[in-house]
Amino acid sequence: MPYFDAATSAPLHPVAKQALLAALDEGWADPARLYREGRRARLLLDAAREAAADAVGCRPDELVFTASGTQALHTGMAGVLAGRRRAGRHLIVSAVEHSAVLHSAAVHEGQGGSVTEIPVDRGGRVDASLFVRALREDTALACLQSANHEVGTVQPVAEIAEVCRATGVPLLVDAAQSLAWGPVEGDWSVLAGSAHKWGGPAGVGLLAVRKGVRFSVQGPVDERESGRAPGFENLPAIVAAAASLRAVRTEAAQEAVRLRELTALIRARVPELVADVEVVGDPERRLPHIVTFSCLYVDGESLLHELDRAGFSVSSGSSCTSSTLTPSHVLKAMGVLSEGNVRISLPPGTSGEDVERFLAVLPGAVASVREKLGAPVGPAASPGLKELVLDTLGKRCPLPVIELAKAIGQVAVGGTVTVLSDDEVAELDIRAWCHLRGQEYVGEEPAERGWAYVVRRLV
Amino acid sequence: MPYFDAATSAPLHPVAKQALLAALDEGWADPARLYREGRRARLLLDAAREAAADAVGCRPDELVFTASGTQALHTGMAGVLAGRRRAGRHLIVSAVEHSAVLHSAAVHEGQGGSVTEIPVDRGGRVDASLFVRALREDTALACLQSANHEVGTVQPVAEIAEVCRATGVPLLVDAAQSLAWGPVEGDWSVLAGSAHKWGGPAGVGLLAVRKGVRFSVQGPVDERESGRAPGFENLPAIVAAAASLRAVRTEAAQEAVRLRELTALIRARVPELVADVEVVGDPERRLPHIVTFSCLYVDGESLLHELDRAGFSVSSGSSCTSSTLTPSHVLKAMGVLSEGNVRISLPPGTSGEDVERFLAVLPGAVASVREKLGAPVGPAASPGLKELVLDTLGKRCPLPVIELAKAIGQVAVGGTVTVLSDDEVAELDIRAWCHLRGQEYVGEEPAERGWAYVVRRLV
Repeated sequence: MPYFDAATSAPLHPVAKQALLAALDEGWADPARLYREGRRARLLLDAAREAAADAVGCRPDELVFTASGTQALHTGMAGVLAGRRRAGRHLIVSAVEHSAVLHSAAVHEGQGGSVTEIPVDRGGRVDASLFVRALREDTALACLQSANHEVGTVQPVAEIAEVCRATGVPLLVDAAQSLAWGPVEGDWSVLAGSAHKWGGPAGVGLLAVRKGVRFSVQGPVDERESGRAPGFENLPAIVAAAASLRAVRTEAAQEAVRLRELTALIRARVPELVADVEVVGDPERRLPHIVTFSCLYVDGESLLHELDRAGFSVSSGSSCTSSTLTPSHVLKAMGVLSEGNVRISLPPGTSGEDVERFLAVLPGAVASVREKLGAPVGPAASPGLKELVLDTLGKRCPLPVIELAKAIGQVAVGGTVTVLSDDEVAELDIRAWCHLRGQEYVGEEPAERGWAYVVRRLV
Repeated sequence: MPYFDAATSAPLHPVAKQALLAALDEGWADPARLYREGRRARLLLDAAREAAADAVGCRPDELVFTASGTQALHTGMAGVLAGRRRAGRHLIVSAVEHSAVLHSAAVHEGQGGSVTEIPVDRGGRVDASLFVRALREDTALACLQSANHEVGTVQPVAEIAEVCRATGVPLLVDAAQSLAWGPVEGDWSVLAGSAHKWGGPAGVGLLAVRKGVRFSVQGPVDERESGRAPGFENLPAIVAAAASLRAVRTEAAQEAVRLRELTALIRARVPELVADVEVVGDPERRLPHIVTFSCLYVDGESLLHELDRAGFSVSSGSSCTSSTLTPSHVLKAMGVLSEGNVRISLPPGTSGEDVERFLAVLPGAVASVREKLGAPVGPAASPGLKELVLDTLGKRCPLPVIELAKAIGQVAVGGTVTVLSDDEVAELDIRAWCHLRGQEYVGEEPAERGWAYVVRRLV
């Protein structure tokens, strides 16, 4: 039963499990204590810190272990923002950062700070010159992921880090998705990672803060982890995290080539196998293991259920599948279709056969969802209307787009369809549908309820 | 090699290890995902929450898992203090709370809140009437441990909870040391615990907040754990924590009787075996597994090394052993001797033979440290001085008291010795020495350097 959601959480690496088991016996005591069990724990903790620092590319005394990647990001951002309070209260983030970064940014804004969100291109990549132009006198911190978690696009970190360094603004890099593949290049100032993303156990994040970065931990702390991560160290998990990071790195170069071929195959084949699909994310500058696509006339949750029934575990940034029912902020920032979104993220060791089987199963799964939703199957008869108003109020994604697609044939070329919708993602999806089908998105305006989206038939 | 420091961290319970291993295979995926691995993880998480809530005595939807007991305390205190901002900004804590509570209180004070610290008696117990008298109109939160972590004294939680409930002030109970032995009695509002204290794995705390308590989580959060503990759930450890709590509880009643006898034996025998020892903590209202004593003329660190060499791992609240070199705030609040402090906390399953061996080894270990430090061995010749000034500036605990003990014989009964010292704990230890030796502690006043402590010879 193939699991294709490594970007959410990778299965535990065998080395992590071995190390965890060994450390449960040897490393359960308090490393701050002076007796033998404590000294043994301290040795394990020191060795884990050295191994992790080596893999990250920093000094051991610059790295602390946290309880999660999320905690590393929260602590890292709050620490620099407070430490550089005198420089100013301006924060820069990309629009496609992990929610932990955006949540911290929202807290900062709520406390009176200002935030600039840097947009991305349709491939999800930040324009380095735009990012750099946002740097100000009063910028306390800039945040950029090494690679995007939803679409795999690699960001121009080294380039931006260089300018940040030159202007004295610390750059915090969320390296959660890329640490398995190698250290982050460039002269970053703060870095965060999460062990369960690279095959380590849950419960371990890492936070590296270069010497010289002004850092002031917020909230209550204790003497653990240089005063940056309070609470008893989760030592067995830390040991397992460090050991597995080292292990995945030794396999990374070879595995990256292999997985990149498999994701390239998916990128190429999906649009051939399924109609009305948009593969999203930068086609070249991308992580080896992630590929994401969106399917018109499909709701993500139903598609995930179909694929799950067929034995494939995949993820979705589609509004319809997330528990919160808001559309993925990443797909939104990219301006691409969010409906029927599927993210494939292959764990190391994924076989070519499993990928082939997935490609064999996908068309049927999409067709089944489309059939249930009544998606359009061919060109509709064209009665040649000049204007048509479609009331889709109360209908959720992907139904507004499905009705639009069915109705467009009823207007003459040059005529317009106005879609009334109160679904939050309708604009994104109608725009994306126009882009995909070569129709013109004219614009939107507030309606009595929701919005009116106007589309002109061109073909 | 007996490990007698369960109050710092208990060795992993066999059930915890079994459950952890099983959950590493079954529960590594994201419980928020819809595919089979995610659904399986969700089932495990739900079951763990139910088991933990049952053991704590609350509803499952009142309990969340955190990354540590410390995080549970930090989050719990900040959440209630913010949620009850309108009621006021007054916080009550006992003087012998865990440092995580006192750190949070310091942060609250730094942000303009006010804090009342309730003193304890010489046994380390809070006077319920004093605590209750501190409740004010503007009290937002009161915090009391179920039992003290350094001396094992059980606090009058039920009594205080009743009054808090009646006056509408939430009582937060730090139950870290007592959860293994049973649920906290009384009508508490918020409760925190830590799995590695009951034989569960590190990396799991629990926070229970009764419905109806105004609670506003501070800082960035996400959708995990009801928005109260951000970051990917450490599910295998959570499963192991819940399973082991249930397991230790089934053994608790019987084991409590057995360990209470062993600690009672230590309480009784140590003063018989070693001269100049003070057993501290309430002799009756105490946890079954903890016993603490302090030895005059001994520094804790050296004694711990001696005991470690003899194969016993014990802890110390003595200033001389902690990494920070500050005296234990608990012993200080109790007004008891802090020098040569030893805390014995027996893990379940400790054998009577090991305790007997410890008692056999202890006198030699203490004697060896005392000999190295040149502690007094008999009454000194009495030349009958009226006054004597002892300059111990620059000398650290326990040397000032050792010099005092050696010098007291040089003054006549009724005469005084003035000890000049700049060691932070000197007052505590000189007071405790007078108490133990039947001499009079006259008082202290600032000296050119440090303080002058005046002692009158009575015997």
